[in-house]
Amino acid sequence: MVTAGVLIIGNEILSGRTQDANLQYIAKHLVARGITVAESQVVPDIEDVLVQRINYLRENYDYVLTTGGIGPTHDDITAHCVAKAFGVSLVIDEAIAERIRGRPAPEEVMQNRLLMARVPEGASLIENSTGGPQGFQIENVYVMAGIPFVLQNMLPNIEFKGGDVVRSKSIKVYLGESNIAAELAQIQEQHVTLDIGSYPFTGESRYGTVLVIRGTDPSEIDSAASKIKSMVVAQGETPEEIDST
Amino acid sequence: MVTAGVLIIGNEILSGRTQDANLQYIAKHLVARGITVAESQVVPDIEDVLVQRINYLRENYDYVLTTGGIGPTHDDITAHCVAKAFGVSLVIDEAIAERIRGRPAPEEVMQNRLLMARVPEGASLIENSTGGPQGFQIENVYVMAGIPFVLQNMLPNIEFKGGDVVRSKSIKVYLGESNIAAELAQIQEQHVTLDIGSYPFTGESRYGTVLVIRGTDPSEIDSAASKIKSMVVAQGETPEEIDST
Repeated sequence: MVTAGVLIIGNEILSGRTQDANLQYIAKHLVARGITVAESQVVPDIEDVLVQRINYLRENYDYVLTTGGIGPTHDDITAHCVAKAFGVSLVIDEAIAERIRGRPAPEEVMQNRLLMARVPEGASLIENSTGGPQGFQIENVYVMAGIPFVLQNMLPNIEFKGGDVVRSKSIKVYLGESNIAAELAQIQEQHVTLDIGSYPFTGESRYGTVLVIRGTDPSEIDSAASKIKSMVVAQGETPEEIDST
Repeated sequence: MVTAGVLIIGNEILSGRTQDANLQYIAKHLVARGITVAESQVVPDIEDVLVQRINYLRENYDYVLTTGGIGPTHDDITAHCVAKAFGVSLVIDEAIAERIRGRPAPEEVMQNRLLMARVPEGASLIENSTGGPQGFQIENVYVMAGIPFVLQNMLPNIEFKGGDVVRSKSIKVYLGESNIAAELAQIQEQHVTLDIGSYPFTGESRYGTVLVIRGTDPSEIDSAASKIKSMVVAQGETPEEIDST
């Protein structure tokens, strides 16, 4: 299993001001490439916290993706913290500096922009055609922008080496979880390589459940899906396959 | 400062299948009550991970709020993990069992429903009028449902003791961050009790920045806000106050 940890950096998420949209986007992108997001942490712009979490995640997962904190203002401390986590200096990357100088600006503005040319020594750049702040990679850590459209531009430019792709099938049933819990647990036990999740919802003024089967072997997913469907039919309800990846 | 850690439990968030909506809702609710969300972690339904994170969060923050994993199916392991984290047994809560028995169901369904009556020994219930799964509190840990409408029903029934309420003012400017970075850093330095965040965006086909001033003293916020506005006006742009709490 190839794993990733996602670090969402930014006080604005923790204050409730901004709804994070990056975790879901990254997760879908990685899952499609055979990479499992093992966990995500949302942390404030505090140096000690960032350094500690970057080190924890890079030691525990194959990939670490961070979002946020790479602009030119005082609250953009991600590059500094990544450098500190790796015990390297923050250096001016000439390729980035070149690009920045290519867009004329008054001297003071240019000085601020050039703050975005600082990367940890040894980092390589992540291509980004938006003109937004520059992301970079150092070892297994990929540092990206927090602005969703910039992040979404960067992500396809990273070459991930994934494992087997996890596929899924989702079945919607208008039965409460308690109606299916025992049999579902049996089906899960019969298919230990699968991860069967049960997600209740309310709709059409009654409780329903979406059952999500995830695994790398499509035939095993099909086998579990047909058992789930039989269980639902036996209770007089009609299972609806809503999603298959 | 009164702090909280938020634990989002669920594979469906990490697989990208579901967009989490609970963190923002909880954050807004707590911020309005003078509680700072210090961090959030999104973790899968894995016992060791849950136990470790529950203990980490409860030892480090005044409040811990968890969402998800309290239904009756095999993947609902939150109550079990909270009990294990506290080193107590999982016991049937008679008040919950009573409520569950009050809604007639076939014997097998009832047995599954009664799984939702298990809480860690010593826990008290969080009121919930939706009929959904029961949340509970043990010491500083509040265990809630993952379904947003159930969570939103539970949250107002918890009595939080907050600190000074953090207020904020947001100013939108059509200037790139590099145009304001240096002066903004000075303003931040002059107001150390405030947290001034800078959030770039794109709109009307140019870059802009939202500057968010957060702090507990409204007059200090006003003072920083007027300095920010003057800085923007000096650059020939018009600052727009978009939000004030």
